[in-house]
Amino acid sequence: MKNIAFKRLTVIGVGLIGGSLALDLKRLGAVEEVVGVGRSRENLQRALELGVVDRVETALPEAVDGADLIFLATPVGQIPLILKTILPFIPEHALITDAGSTKSDVASVFREQFKQASNILARAVPAHPIAGSDLSGASAARYGLYAEKTVVVTPLEENAPECVQRVDALWRLVGARTCQLSPDAHDAIFSAVSHLPHLLAFAYISSLLTREDLSACLALAGSGFRDFSRIAASHPEMWRDIALSNKHRLLDDIEQFSSSLDKIKSALLRDDAQTLSKIFFDAQQTRAAWPPKY
Amino acid sequence: MKNIAFKRLTVIGVGLIGGSLALDLKRLGAVEEVVGVGRSRENLQRALELGVVDRVETALPEAVDGADLIFLATPVGQIPLILKTILPFIPEHALITDAGSTKSDVASVFREQFKQASNILARAVPAHPIAGSDLSGASAARYGLYAEKTVVVTPLEENAPECVQRVDALWRLVGARTCQLSPDAHDAIFSAVSHLPHLLAFAYISSLLTREDLSACLALAGSGFRDFSRIAASHPEMWRDIALSNKHRLLDDIEQFSSSLDKIKSALLRDDAQTLSKIFFDAQQTRAAWPPKY
Repeated sequence: MKNIAFKRLTVIGVGLIGGSLALDLKRLGAVEEVVGVGRSRENLQRALELGVVDRVETALPEAVDGADLIFLATPVGQIPLILKTILPFIPEHALITDAGSTKSDVASVFREQFKQASNILARAVPAHPIAGSDLSGASAARYGLYAEKTVVVTPLEENAPECVQRVDALWRLVGARTCQLSPDAHDAIFSAVSHLPHLLAFAYISSLLTREDLSACLALAGSGFRDFSRIAASHPEMWRDIALSNKHRLLDDIEQFSSSLDKIKSALLRDDAQTLSKIFFDAQQTRAAWPPKY
Repeated sequence: MKNIAFKRLTVIGVGLIGGSLALDLKRLGAVEEVVGVGRSRENLQRALELGVVDRVETALPEAVDGADLIFLATPVGQIPLILKTILPFIPEHALITDAGSTKSDVASVFREQFKQASNILARAVPAHPIAGSDLSGASAARYGLYAEKTVVVTPLEENAPECVQRVDALWRLVGARTCQLSPDAHDAIFSAVSHLPHLLAFAYISSLLTREDLSACLALAGSGFRDFSRIAASHPEMWRDIALSNKHRLLDDIEQFSSSLDKIKSALLRDDAQTLSKIFFDAQQTRAAWPPKY
């Protein structure tokens, strides 16, 4: 427990992800004080009222003052400016980690912003808790969010091994399973299983919006629609940042997807029942066997 | 109650949909006896063991003998042959309905098969209970499946009004909300909110199958993947039939979808954050407001 006890946790971006980690660490007695900072005063006020944070700051330098754990839980696109702003104020020995859904870009940003500060880079360990939701904001924060969830830690070669170990232990403390991957391997996998589905769900809802029978469609849509399109209710700005940050892999995966959809389209056009059956059957077998057993 | 009480219900295709209706009608005392028939003896045996049906038949003529309610709950593609086979054996006054996910084709099949039997056509009322699932077979049947679900009744001009009313009442009896649409309006709406999502989910899983990192992808996929791809575990043969049967509307909707996806792709290629934000935001607003309040 000694290794993972912190006097002051600063959460930058107090939403579902940042707020839920703060709640659990506080309940576990693993942090003494949580300071919240973010762009929306209204959201910070809500976080304070809900007891997600103990104190709020509106300026980043004050927010990281005295912190021994800094958790970046904003959309990925905001991280470069945040790091530039806090760099001169990061306390010695503070551990830094993030929750960005893309990791190659976070790795580059850490390296770029901390290139003159190898002692800080050694303590800046990127990670990605797989606990996203279509909910956002401080009021979405809850105890136990990370129980049984997976957190992918994507260490840099420049990281101090004991800092990697502390970030790993931190997530295990709140009930998550952890695994370690390179930022590249992480981004390839999450393009396929998360970023692409989000883009497809946004594209799907977008394709309905000009229909004359849109109201009837929405009134009659059932549980297939509900589940398939749920992630189209996700935070637009966060997903814009993720999509842009992982765009090369995403464009490849969109190509793969479009090629599968084209096969279905051609089979439909020529009434090729056998090909349709084969494509649907192969997909069905794989999806029905998910999640894999360990 | 008098209007919706039946002595013998014959369920053709004893799966989730047919079996669940049988269970509820029996529990409500609205049918005296349920006869099950289908292609799989193993499934029929299971239906008998589970008490979903009282009796099974392996031949269609015997199965419909003495029935005053015939419920077609097979994949849509099997309906023409079934109707041809049972036509000479349909008891006078038997009410006929189905649960097919496409309705223009069922309307055509009813008209074609019953063209010499206008008295039967008057009593053959197509309908679509919106209660699908990725589960199938007799063991998926359960009490209360239709509570709060929507059933779309798509009457033919040739139907006797009292038969339409009886089918409508039958579904309301098991707790469903009913609405009436033309088969064409039904198919346009369900292409958009059900058939297209299924095809996209199958195409999505299909596009992953050749990846070298497939195992890691499946191991790390989270709740977004779970919900988005759930319907790719649906019955391949049933969805092949639905896709082929509604292919013209589906091909149009695939075009609309591809055009939305192309807009996202182009925006990604030129790093156009503003366009991405706009597309994601518009989709997010619509999806977050679903389901509509009544």
